[in-house]
Amino acid sequence: MTDRKTISVDGMGGDNAPDTVVAGLERFAKDNLDYAFLLHGDVNTLTPLLDAAPLTKARAEVRHTDRQVGMDVKPSQAMRRGKGTSMWNAIEAVKTGDADAAVSAGNTGALMAMAKLILRTQEGLHRPALVANWPTTSGVAAVLDVGANIAADAEQLVEFAIMGEAFSRAVHHKDRPKVGLLNIGSEDMKGHDEVREAAQLIRDCGLDMAYHGFVEGDDISLSGVDVIVTDGFTGNIALKSAEGAARLVGGFLSDALKSGVFSRLGALIAMPALRRFQARMDPRAVNGGVFLGLNGVVVKSHGGTDAIGFANAVRIASNMCESRFADEVAVNLKRLAAASEAQALKEAAS
Amino acid sequence: MTDRKTISVDGMGGDNAPDTVVAGLERFAKDNLDYAFLLHGDVNTLTPLLDAAPLTKARAEVRHTDRQVGMDVKPSQAMRRGKGTSMWNAIEAVKTGDADAAVSAGNTGALMAMAKLILRTQEGLHRPALVANWPTTSGVAAVLDVGANIAADAEQLVEFAIMGEAFSRAVHHKDRPKVGLLNIGSEDMKGHDEVREAAQLIRDCGLDMAYHGFVEGDDISLSGVDVIVTDGFTGNIALKSAEGAARLVGGFLSDALKSGVFSRLGALIAMPALRRFQARMDPRAVNGGVFLGLNGVVVKSHGGTDAIGFANAVRIASNMCESRFADEVAVNLKRLAAASEAQALKEAAS
Repeated sequence: MTDRKTISVDGMGGDNAPDTVVAGLERFAKDNLDYAFLLHGDVNTLTPLLDAAPLTKARAEVRHTDRQVGMDVKPSQAMRRGKGTSMWNAIEAVKTGDADAAVSAGNTGALMAMAKLILRTQEGLHRPALVANWPTTSGVAAVLDVGANIAADAEQLVEFAIMGEAFSRAVHHKDRPKVGLLNIGSEDMKGHDEVREAAQLIRDCGLDMAYHGFVEGDDISLSGVDVIVTDGFTGNIALKSAEGAARLVGGFLSDALKSGVFSRLGALIAMPALRRFQARMDPRAVNGGVFLGLNGVVVKSHGGTDAIGFANAVRIASNMCESRFADEVAVNLKRLAAASEAQALKEAAS
Repeated sequence: MTDRKTISVDGMGGDNAPDTVVAGLERFAKDNLDYAFLLHGDVNTLTPLLDAAPLTKARAEVRHTDRQVGMDVKPSQAMRRGKGTSMWNAIEAVKTGDADAAVSAGNTGALMAMAKLILRTQEGLHRPALVANWPTTSGVAAVLDVGANIAADAEQLVEFAIMGEAFSRAVHHKDRPKVGLLNIGSEDMKGHDEVREAAQLIRDCGLDMAYHGFVEGDDISLSGVDVIVTDGFTGNIALKSAEGAARLVGGFLSDALKSGVFSRLGALIAMPALRRFQARMDPRAVNGGVFLGLNGVVVKSHGGTDAIGFANAVRIASNMCESRFADEVAVNLKRLAAASEAQALKEAAS
């Protein structure tokens, strides 16, 4: 590897692959001249697309495979039979050092399972976590875990906090991110044991972190807290519940503005403002979940996104490459380990 | 009690009590001539308000107390020291048979704790649950539990399904409500053990219920499933996350429409449509969570609502009074108990 960073891309993953993938790379390439690409997939399909994407073509190496992971394949199947697919090869290039990060819009479960198998979990961490970019009044928040795991104990929640905080700095460019633990009440007495224990652990173990305290569901969108920590079951349901509610509101608005001559006229006159509104709500702007905590960066793009969305996922991968994410996480993990050890010694002595 | 139903009301609970309470009763009374009220609170404050609410005054009995539950009181304190407060007395009137249902806009934790202490859990149920009315593409869904409990095992989830289904019939007037279990994947293999076991139990125990299967977070708003079942931690976070997202979208829209001359003009012309949009989003229309599974009906109104919202909470209480809720729940609970017993016998024999 030279100074030029390389992004490894699953050319065949996603509902609109490979067209959207190549178009997305071309958008990203325009603003990021110092990036090269390793593009994994069917060379016969990819070559004509690259002819129409000159910036990408000039900096992309195509690595051919005619195998790809289906959108319905279960994680266990993908792990057993996924070797040699475009997704597998995209991740493996990070392991071998041929690339600095991998991006795929393919099957989420398969991607997480393969990434964990190939790259392994970063030393000192129990579990990786999937982080989502959540639109808020203050821009965007990092919410994790949103589905890599089904549950999390107190120590794992603290690990998620450590990773989310470094992610917020790397990708959302927050200097000193505020970190909150998702709970059902802001009083210390409420909530699951593991959430309360995690709060105690964060306070006790001397992390370099702006810990905000407990937050409730509505605080994710409205409070200005930058990193929201929860288990993968709750986080996935919170994220999808909020997406559903936002789509419902958007649908109601659209119904209303199409409901008669005056509303159509009003909407037409206010169109620039409505377009600005839509832009703030644009899911493509927040596309790209990172699978945090592996020995390497893997970004999951939404399967149904378009070129703008895919370019954003690649941008997130590049932000991660340019950051000191792994080092920052390692420093705080050492503090956590020391505190856990001290606690264990204290318990053993008493 | 005569044929006329009586609603017992905490006159002093809520941010804008007692004014909003009396104004809300007056709105409800206009359309519901066959209801009487027991109004608990400070007679000196309530009397002048009733003079301005003639329909309520004609059918209300004021039961004086100068004690009330503060909004910051913890549930444990409320249970120890709550006796004789307006909230306590409102619930107790249901127990004595003086009233058919109780409504309060006061402290949620205190209301749940007192209601459970005074009315006790319905026979055959492990735990009561708090149900919320969630706006959806098909009107409204019942989501429970949204915070009465912190966790739920499989059997409790099935009990929530049974109560939610009867609630949907009673209050949302769905003939044959579709019931879904909230999970993080629609495949049978995903999710918490207790959720998968609950799905199995519903299928096995011969409930009279249209079971739909697993639903994900976005399905709550968008799928047309009428009853969504989950534990109180997840349900509370899903509900509040969705509320936060809806408020965020509303705020972005409002910002956009105020952002210049043309957008203001457009919004003015489209105002009737925007008002219809707002009406569909109006939180007052879905105000009133019922604390299900007690020996008596207790409805929690949002603390900050106005007269329209409070009237809606009273309407929900009246729907519950007129329904066969307790009988319907009892029938399905017997089927669940029989299935659980058969299962236990089978396990003991094997």
